[in-house]
Parts: sequence; C-alpha cells; structure tokens
Amino acid sequence: GPEAPQEGLDTDVKLFFDSAPPLRDSLSLSERLTEFIERNSWSSGNKRPNRVVCITSGGTTVPLERRCIRYIDNFSSGHRGAASTEYFLKAGYAVIYLHRRGTCQPYCRSLPEDSFLECLEVTEESSVQVHQSHSAVVTRALRDHHAAVEKRLLLKLPFTTIFEYLQILRMVAISMRSLGAHCMFYLAAAVSDFYVPWDCMVEHKIQSASGPLDMRLAQVPKMLLVLRKEWSPMAFCISFKLETDSKILLEKADKALRKYNVHMVVANELSTRKEVVILVTGSERLTVRRNKNEADDDVENPLIKLLVEKHSAYIEESILRETA
Amino acid sequence: GPEAPQEGLDTDVKLFFDSAPPLRDSLSLSERLTEFIERNSWSSGNKRPNRVVCITSGGTTVPLERRCIRYIDNFSSGHRGAASTEYFLKAGYAVIYLHRRGTCQPYCRSLPEDSFLECLEVTEESSVQVHQSHSAVVTRALRDHHAAVEKRLLLKLPFTTIFEYLQILRMVAISMRSLGAHCMFYLAAAVSDFYVPWDCMVEHKIQSASGPLDMRLAQVPKMLLVLRKEWSPMAFCISFKLETDSKILLEKADKALRKYNVHMVVANELSTRKEVVILVTGSERLTVRRNKNEADDDVENPLIKLLVEKHSAYIEESILRETA
Repeated sequence: GPEAPQEGLDTDVKLFFDSAPPLRDSLSLSERLTEFIERNSWSSGNKRPNRVVCITSGGTTVPLERRCIRYIDNFSSGHRGAASTEYFLKAGYAVIYLHRRGTCQPYCRSLPEDSFLECLEVTEESSVQVHQSHSAVVTRALRDHHAAVEKRLLLKLPFTTIFEYLQILRMVAISMRSLGAHCMFYLAAAVSDFYVPWDCMVEHKIQSASGPLDMRLAQVPKMLLVLRKEWSPMAFCISFKLETDSKILLEKADKALRKYNVHMVVANELSTRKEVVILVTGSERLTVRRNKNEADDDVENPLIKLLVEKHSAYIEESILRETA
Repeated sequence: GPEAPQEGLDTDVKLFFDSAPPLRDSLSLSERLTEFIERNSWSSGNKRPNRVVCITSGGTTVPLERRCIRYIDNFSSGHRGAASTEYFLKAGYAVIYLHRRGTCQPYCRSLPEDSFLECLEVTEESSVQVHQSHSAVVTRALRDHHAAVEKRLLLKLPFTTIFEYLQILRMVAISMRSLGAHCMFYLAAAVSDFYVPWDCMVEHKIQSASGPLDMRLAQVPKMLLVLRKEWSPMAFCISFKLETDSKILLEKADKALRKYNVHMVVANELSTRKEVVILVTGSERLTVRRNKNEADDDVENPLIKLLVEKHSAYIEESILRETA
C-alpha cells in the first residue's frame, strides 16, 4: 500500500504510547540503562568496549482483553537473539539483550528444554549435582553467562507485550543516541504487526457466545521509522525479515530496506533459518551460510563477523563525514 | 445461546479431529499411557494406588497460519495444575499431568523465574553448585519431582496447540475408561474457545497490508460433552471456570455444570484465584480458602482434600449402583 504520510504516523505513534498501559519499574530501568551505557561508552575513557548493540529477541504478545487472559503471540524461540548475543560479546561489544520473558538465554542454547529438572540430580548426601552427561555443557553455560553479566557487558531486559517492548525499545534507543555511530540495533524480535489499542480493548474476558468470533486488529505504527528518524538517528540499524514463502522473501526484504530506511535487512526463511540467511543492503545481497564442517557452528557466527565489519566501515564513514 | 443439537456436535467434533494436523509420536505416547494406567490400576493387584487423575494445566495455542508464526494464546502459568499435582500425589493418586510445554512443573513452583541461571553457580574447582540461598528449595524440588517420576506415579505429557491438547486428552480419556469410577479428570487447562480450522488456515504468514486485519474464528466443539458421554463416561469429572468479572462467575459456573454434565465446577476469579475458589456442585456451593495462618499453604491443599472426599463418595455410590 501507499506509505502513510509523516503526519499520520506521528499521530499513530502518539496514540500508541499515550494509550499504552504504563511500564512497571520504568525509573529503575532507566537508571540501569543509563549506568550500563555510560560504563560501556567510549567517552568514559576506560578500557571497556566502545560499541554497544541492542539485540531484540523473541516474540511480542498482543493482549485481547485488558485483564489479559487471551492474547495473540508471535512464535519465536529466541534462539537467534541468544546466539547473536554470544557472538557480539565475543567480538567485544557490550550487549543490551531486550528479550521476551522465558525465551532462550545467551550460552544456554544447548541445554535441554526442561533444563533444571533434566540436568540436575540430588546425591545420597543431599547435595545437588549435574548429571555427568550434561556436565560440560552446563558448566560452560553458567560460567560464560555469569561472566558477561558480572563484567557488565550484558544487560538483560525482559518484555512480554507489544506495549512493554516498544516502550523499552524507545528508552533504549534514546539512551543510546549519545553513542552516535558506535551503537547498533539488531532487531531480531518477532514484533506483532497488529494490535488492539488499549482504549478499544474490552475490560473483561471475551464471552464465548454461540457463534464465531470476529476480531478487528489495528496496525502497529511503524516504530522503526521513528527509531531511525528521531530516537537514535546515527545508530547502525539492522532489521530482520522472516517469511515462510521463499518466493516473496527477497522482494519483501528490499521493500523493508527502503521503507524503514534501515542500513541492512537480514532475510530469512522459517524452514532454513538456522542454515542460511541473506544480508540485503542497498547495493548487495550477501548469502551467509553456517559452516557445516564444524558441527557446533551457527549461522550467527559468520553473520555477526560480517556485520561487525560493516559496522566498522559505517563508523569510519561517519568519522570522515564529521571531519569533512 | 441454544445448545447445539447432538448431531451438530458430532459433525463438529469429527471435522475438528479429521482436519487436525496428526499428532507426532502418537504410537509411543499411546504405549506409555497404556503402561502407566496398567501399572496404576486396581486390577493389576499390586500395592500401587488404584486411583488415577488426569490433570490438565496451562493454556492451549490456536495457530493462525499453518506454518505457524502467529497464534492466539491463553494466559496460564500452570501454577494451579502443578500445585494440584503435588497434592493429588500426596493423597495417593497416580497423576497424568497433561501440561502446556514450558509451564510450571510440580515441585518447582518456588523456584525463581529463570531458575537455571539464578540458582546455580560454578565453583573455583569448576563444579556446579546451588547458591546457598536457594539450596533447600532446589534440593526438595529435585528430590520430590524425580521420586514421583521414578516411582511411575507421575506421567508428564506436554502439549502446545489446541489440536495437540484435544487429541492427547481423547487418548488419555479412552485409555482411562477401564478404570471406571476410580479415575478423575481435573481440567484446569485454559482451553481456547475459538480456533481457525486447519482447512481454512492460510499456508503462509499473513501479510500486513495497509489496513486493519479482520479475523473470523470458529468455536471449538464442546469436547467436554464428548468426554463425559463417550470417551470416559464413568470418570469423576471436574472442570474449571475462570472469569475476571465476579458478578457473572457463579452464574457461568452453574451453567457449565448443567451444560457439560460434569460432576463439579471449580469457580475462580483471576485476581483472587490463589486465595479462594468456590466448588460448585449440583446441590452445593462450597467456598474453599487458603489457610493464611500457614505461610506456605496453597488453596489447592484444602481443595484437593475436599475433592478426594467427594471422589471417595462417588466411588462408593458407583459400587452401590453396580451391586444394586
């Protein structure tokens, strides 16, 4: 369809945030965020990295009732975001991991589904130990995860609803603005396209009458445009396009690149997303594949290497522009 | 609305199951189920309990696309089902815990949200240990959980979609039929009222065009009626009614009791569900409260005590009827 004119977007964005239920703990969140960015910014003059990436991960929910029982959800395990967090940390970035509550956590990808009950046992002496078969995986997961958090290189911020997600993303983006070109957004979350505005939402549980249920959902305003334009205009910005139909994937990725004015789009298809992605830029389409010769390799390994290079080039350019 | 005539229901039920995507691992599931029920049935003549309860727990999802990215979900932590499982086991029942994948597990209710990462640490000698502060809770959780599974008193069956849930419930109910009045259904899961029939579902991800999204959902056939009538007619059957509006709660519970021909309905309100429930039978409304004098008590403690008594009376009656 035709692009919404800027004025329409502004109104939609304002309506969305004005009508959203207020974020809990927004003050303490804001403090943790400011402290994290200050610690990891170049200007603080310490030996910490001067690049910060905000990785979004997992699906957002759309409540259908105010006292929420039913909601629409977007399937996403958070595996992509968790893996990417590990590789960005390895590359020396500080990471803000904005993730759906309960989804996959960095360094915990190889744990079994119900890891707590499956990995642990009580010995005869009543101490808890890890089953031998899981021992190496568990030890590494715990050590790497705790190390990143303790060194304050990893800040984990959970969300559930689309309202929480977009409010926190806005806070993060505005806080990161001071980092200029040194910050990156890696937007891998599966964000709802449609929602029920809080003002239109029924207070109580929808009653199941005898007939079918008809629902009308409004479009979520295109916040990516606002992020690029207002919240953090200098940030290096990567968005994701997931489709189930390979025939329309690249076309949709190209369209997203232009429409949202992001620097790159990672195009991926549901059935092959762990094997291959295509990095779409204004001038290139780069196919990135998992290294099948290494059993443990992830497609995120070469992808993040490539993105770090692209980010370096972007920072260089922005310095040249500034000094020109 | 008016009750659907039986013929309409039969057609709807047949359509639902015929069009549902086939259950994975249904053969191995059926074997585990048969073995579990045989082990715990009175007829096996061993010292095991002769009462089996199927507890359903957590919400079912309704996929909106065949290659599922978006779905409708029902909020439920699974806390009720997990707590009830513990009390039924304590009362000597064998429990089939039909639960939403990833929700609260029996004996694990007091663990922190992200329990694996929060409870464990790696020592300097590279062994994994539980943080002192969580030690007692974790040890008890693991020991009790593993004991129940190892003694084959607890069979855990996970589901995600409404299709999986109803197909497994049907298998369980038909398998339990042989137990007669000694089996119970305790249906605490938050089951979707509406769904998109598989045949009507779009293959690919719904495209977000410029306008709003209109959806039409069909009613899920009232499977409780079929459970009562065909799958397991002798079972003692408890269903749940959760509402957010206290004004309509008891009226809805009464209606459910009559409509589905269940033996009892546990009526509960979203905001007070951990403190109080009302057990609605054909002749009584019994208010059941958590014992506030004991810090760790749950409302499920007195509720399950009461239900066990009611079940005993029901078994007595059924024996009298048989011998009459």
